[in-house]
Amino acid sequence: MNKSIILTVFLVISFNFCFTQNKLLTLEELNGSNAYKFYPEYVRITKDLPQLQWKTTTDVFTYLKNDILYESYCKKGEDKQILDLLTFNKNLVKAGRAEVKRFPVINWKTDNSFWYIESSQIIVYDVKKGSFSTITSNHADYENADIEPNSLAVAFTEENNLYITIGNEEKIAVTKDNDKNIVNGHTVSRHEFNTNKGTFWSPKGNFLAFYRKDESQVADYPVIDISKVPAIVNQIKYPMAGGKSEFLSIGIFDIKTRQTIFLKTGGNNDQYLTNPCWSPDEKYFFISVLNRDQNQLKLNQYDASTGDFIKTILEEKSPKYVEPENTPIFFKTKPNEFLWFSEKNGYKHLYRYTLDGELIEQVTDGKSDVISFLSFDQTEQFAYYIAVDEDYPLQQSIYSINLNTKEIVKLSTSDGTHEAMMSPTRKFILDLYSSNKAPHEIQLIDATGLVIKKVYSALNPLQEYKIAEISVGTLQADDNTELYYRLIKPLNFDPSKKYPVIVYVYGGPHAQMISNVWLYGASMWQMFMAQQGFVIFTLDNRGSANRGIKFEQAIFRNLSAVEIKDQMVGIEYLKSLPFVDTERIGVHGWSYGGFMTTALMLKQPETFKVGIAGAPVIDWSMYEVMYGERYMDTPNDNPEGYKNANLMNFAANLKGKLLLIHGTSDDTVVLQHTLKFIQECNNNNIQVDYYQYPGHSHAVRGKSRLHLDTKMYNYFKENL
Amino acid sequence: MNKSIILTVFLVISFNFCFTQNKLLTLEELNGSNAYKFYPEYVRITKDLPQLQWKTTTDVFTYLKNDILYESYCKKGEDKQILDLLTFNKNLVKAGRAEVKRFPVINWKTDNSFWYIESSQIIVYDVKKGSFSTITSNHADYENADIEPNSLAVAFTEENNLYITIGNEEKIAVTKDNDKNIVNGHTVSRHEFNTNKGTFWSPKGNFLAFYRKDESQVADYPVIDISKVPAIVNQIKYPMAGGKSEFLSIGIFDIKTRQTIFLKTGGNNDQYLTNPCWSPDEKYFFISVLNRDQNQLKLNQYDASTGDFIKTILEEKSPKYVEPENTPIFFKTKPNEFLWFSEKNGYKHLYRYTLDGELIEQVTDGKSDVISFLSFDQTEQFAYYIAVDEDYPLQQSIYSINLNTKEIVKLSTSDGTHEAMMSPTRKFILDLYSSNKAPHEIQLIDATGLVIKKVYSALNPLQEYKIAEISVGTLQADDNTELYYRLIKPLNFDPSKKYPVIVYVYGGPHAQMISNVWLYGASMWQMFMAQQGFVIFTLDNRGSANRGIKFEQAIFRNLSAVEIKDQMVGIEYLKSLPFVDTERIGVHGWSYGGFMTTALMLKQPETFKVGIAGAPVIDWSMYEVMYGERYMDTPNDNPEGYKNANLMNFAANLKGKLLLIHGTSDDTVVLQHTLKFIQECNNNNIQVDYYQYPGHSHAVRGKSRLHLDTKMYNYFKENL
Repeated sequence: MNKSIILTVFLVISFNFCFTQNKLLTLEELNGSNAYKFYPEYVRITKDLPQLQWKTTTDVFTYLKNDILYESYCKKGEDKQILDLLTFNKNLVKAGRAEVKRFPVINWKTDNSFWYIESSQIIVYDVKKGSFSTITSNHADYENADIEPNSLAVAFTEENNLYITIGNEEKIAVTKDNDKNIVNGHTVSRHEFNTNKGTFWSPKGNFLAFYRKDESQVADYPVIDISKVPAIVNQIKYPMAGGKSEFLSIGIFDIKTRQTIFLKTGGNNDQYLTNPCWSPDEKYFFISVLNRDQNQLKLNQYDASTGDFIKTILEEKSPKYVEPENTPIFFKTKPNEFLWFSEKNGYKHLYRYTLDGELIEQVTDGKSDVISFLSFDQTEQFAYYIAVDEDYPLQQSIYSINLNTKEIVKLSTSDGTHEAMMSPTRKFILDLYSSNKAPHEIQLIDATGLVIKKVYSALNPLQEYKIAEISVGTLQADDNTELYYRLIKPLNFDPSKKYPVIVYVYGGPHAQMISNVWLYGASMWQMFMAQQGFVIFTLDNRGSANRGIKFEQAIFRNLSAVEIKDQMVGIEYLKSLPFVDTERIGVHGWSYGGFMTTALMLKQPETFKVGIAGAPVIDWSMYEVMYGERYMDTPNDNPEGYKNANLMNFAANLKGKLLLIHGTSDDTVVLQHTLKFIQECNNNNIQVDYYQYPGHSHAVRGKSRLHLDTKMYNYFKENL
Repeated sequence: MNKSIILTVFLVISFNFCFTQNKLLTLEELNGSNAYKFYPEYVRITKDLPQLQWKTTTDVFTYLKNDILYESYCKKGEDKQILDLLTFNKNLVKAGRAEVKRFPVINWKTDNSFWYIESSQIIVYDVKKGSFSTITSNHADYENADIEPNSLAVAFTEENNLYITIGNEEKIAVTKDNDKNIVNGHTVSRHEFNTNKGTFWSPKGNFLAFYRKDESQVADYPVIDISKVPAIVNQIKYPMAGGKSEFLSIGIFDIKTRQTIFLKTGGNNDQYLTNPCWSPDEKYFFISVLNRDQNQLKLNQYDASTGDFIKTILEEKSPKYVEPENTPIFFKTKPNEFLWFSEKNGYKHLYRYTLDGELIEQVTDGKSDVISFLSFDQTEQFAYYIAVDEDYPLQQSIYSINLNTKEIVKLSTSDGTHEAMMSPTRKFILDLYSSNKAPHEIQLIDATGLVIKKVYSALNPLQEYKIAEISVGTLQADDNTELYYRLIKPLNFDPSKKYPVIVYVYGGPHAQMISNVWLYGASMWQMFMAQQGFVIFTLDNRGSANRGIKFEQAIFRNLSAVEIKDQMVGIEYLKSLPFVDTERIGVHGWSYGGFMTTALMLKQPETFKVGIAGAPVIDWSMYEVMYGERYMDTPNDNPEGYKNANLMNFAANLKGKLLLIHGTSDDTVVLQHTLKFIQECNNNNIQVDYYQYPGHSHAVRGKSRLHLDTKMYNYFKENL
């Protein structure tokens, strides 16, 4: 056995359900109208506990249940009904409004009133008085709506321009660009760098900052829409690695004067303006400016009234890449100080800086990432945050740190992966978590971690089913890095038999397949396949998330190389297991996992008999600038890396059965990837299978998902 | 056994090769660089006998062999070398021209000189003098080049405009349309109605008539080209049944005055102007004007100098459709008379009319189609033509008719399917034919049918191979129509065994799959599959060619209905054969045959276990106006017919394994057909397979063909 894969199983967790029944999963029910029940983490958007949220000033949280709105207090005791649908509808009719069939999505505006959107109007309902007020008159669809929480003014886009509507006023055109290549108020940088919106209200609502994206230079990619006859083409802007990219600027619209100024960001046109952010007093605006090479970041301060550049507060460089995903976090009590996320010491941690760029201190430390900042307490002596547990990187907990003493307290005491919703006064926390033992739990804790009460405990959705056994362990990479794997044994496992294996792989950055959540993160399709007699195996190779920057950056400039090395450590382990049929190993993944699947089929052809690659990247030079250049630089700068990762160049190695699958409207990994790959196969008599999902983009959802799950099942069943 | 399929085998021809060797076909050699040897009918474009042609005035024909140009005389005796490549190159160098690696494609201009195109120049070579003259100076590519045989003036197109170059003059712009929707000098009506070119020189070369096509109203269809990165879209004009179509007119350009007039065709914009044609004296121009409904044809005469409409000479109507595919054929000796093709009595025959529209007489008659008119003799007492043999509709012979006595002589005496090349004086005929017994034969006969000499006899390309037995027979349709079938037994046939069957189907108009040519028309892929142990069966159902108009029009307005009925007669026959495994029947076809394959899989799901449908029409409302409306009328006029033929509506019936295959650049059956079909399958969990050939249009050729043949072989092997 290869030295590099000597097994150091220090942790194998396995569990069995006490199954009371013998049901088997079917793909029909996993994709049917009741499928949500298999996904206990969706509790807040399903009928179990929708619209769980805190009120605005008092520590009371509310939720819906059976069309009744409840409020719950931060102490033991019964929750109180505060509104039922009947009463709500009665009051609607009284106010001359139409009845509703179900509760709208509500947002607390004060502790006694909430707003909601109905027929493109923003309506406020006073729960005590039972009365309504209309905040905005009837406008068009609020595309990219961003609602200012105090005034309820709405910033929204129509096509490429940005508008605001305030109260009953006519909509105000913030921008009036005729050129469709100039896009205002939309997200930018293809969702990288934490950009998921294009508008940013100032803290007091007096200004609206917005992205302006000039795509004139960006190439079009044609996406065919067959819903029309004849088919039509939608040209999307798709900047490919090394090609011309979008040019960004940030405008600030003054609600009073209705004038816009633009920040004087200077620099190269194709730099990234990331993590835009207001100072609490609305006087300054901050941008994390990243160069196109993504190896130099400047936190810049601008005058929000003139757009003038004031100074670069701090700068970070890396020989590989810097990845800004957080704004500075300002103290209210110390206006000259802020917390700052940095990965510079190897893990993502919080640092404390002055606005003059002076590093006061490193706040958090250790060999695990801080995932997100939650809040300060009201005195700003404590900070609350979510971090990866240093002793068990598969789970994340809620922590507090005393900023004076640096004392850290793990507030969430249960094993598992935790999220948190902090109460208005920051004295309480809704602790939401999932673990291998608990499908989904919600409890109320106080800011010291004391459990006040259980709020919700999801039923085991599989309690009536026979369920395969899942275990998690670690293996050692060639440089002794610990690699986590998950192994699902086939149902009715018989150690004397030989079973086929399906390796489910993702393998790319920003994702961790194995974590201490329900089923250790295994999908229901994987559980189904285990019931059908397959061993299901997954390993998080170097490059994946939550293991620190060295672990992630191991793949830099040479995608697939280290990932495959690590995956092969998993394969060697599988081959060492007496119940694995080493001649029947398959592999499956989607997106980066599709790339990995195809790469494994082509670069390890002796190992893998069957592969299913969904929406795979085939050639990184056809992938987008922002993500692609971070990990690969440009094709000009890194020709060897691009060549080695271009799977077209390895098509001739194919020995096993490979099925490529792609949504024809994929605007993330464009269809050209698989089309070019099969063209290469066609021209060289390399037999490969291919399937498309017309009209679907990067994921196949909805009615076609059952088809996809069935197709994949059949393909492994028939060929593996 | 069903009454309708009672067997009336009146003709079963079978043959065996005396195989001297035991070679088996491989798909590699059938698609390799020497694959032409399996296609003996390509003799004139392969190295066997390229460029076979008559001289211009004397009855001498020439051909190339091993880079030597030979001439051959209409008597027994040796052929004479008249030019070898060495001499030609020596003379080229002498004339200051570059040597050539192989003989150019030559065209006799006089009996002693030929012209050819080299580097976009038209060059004349005098064989006696060994001298060259350049007719045109260097111009751009002669797209759609049409060369006037006397002056060697070239009409050609550049994008949407028409040009002429005469001698060394600068090119003359015949049209100057800026609007790309106006297309001049190109073919029209999507190649229907015998339109394969867009320019028509007058008999003496003084005028050039040309099509002008206004496509402003025709919808675009987007075809993706992945050879560029990012992919680009080519918008093609694609008129779909019932939709807006192209508008045609015909211009006449006067070479002397350089003025253009347009024919005053009147009528509806979307009528078809078919079979344009000059009177021998250049004074008149004739068009077969067909209404969009394609059920009323007018042969119209126009004044070629003014464009004025003179008269409608004759008119033909049909309750189904009229399909004009021939111009009038004028007598030189009787300027007021012409021959005319019509299917009005049930078969395509020649009629004699006066220019005043008076029917003088029906010339040919009988229950078989005249396929093509060859020529008159010099006195115009005889006409020569190719016709289907009335007693055996699988073959076509060369006939002469004495126009006075109506005596018909079959000039080609050998069994088989004949083509003919008539000598300059019409006294001799090169008779080219193929039959089940002869791969390809060429002999010289005289105008009475007397064989002068053998010119060429192709070797049996399969003489070294073990070859499966082919037989042909007839079955009876439900209305007693005789249906021809071809049956290929598996190699090493053992009557006591059960074999799987592949039905190869086309089934649409304008094609006859079974004819008395080499292998009875079976493809080499079919012969390969028979070697692999499959029975290969093909039946020409009603709707197919060369059986008269009633046979063809049986499918009118209800495509797939009668075709399936007839195909099922074949299936019942197969099931009656003791060696057929009735549980293992597959079907395969391309284009209309892809439509038929899909229709058979969906409408006879109990019969067919496996199907491979190439480039299938799925919904005739997405097929082109000209072909589609002929057989189906418009979707508005024939909603039931379109519904019954729309295979989307039957997708849920699928039981067997169905593989759809499509070239992504298909501009005949657009990709939307298969995309919409699989989308229907995806949304309803109907498992179907799909494959694409990026960059290929309606046929898959070139390097990818081996891949396709292999994929189809594998699919049947693995699933049938």
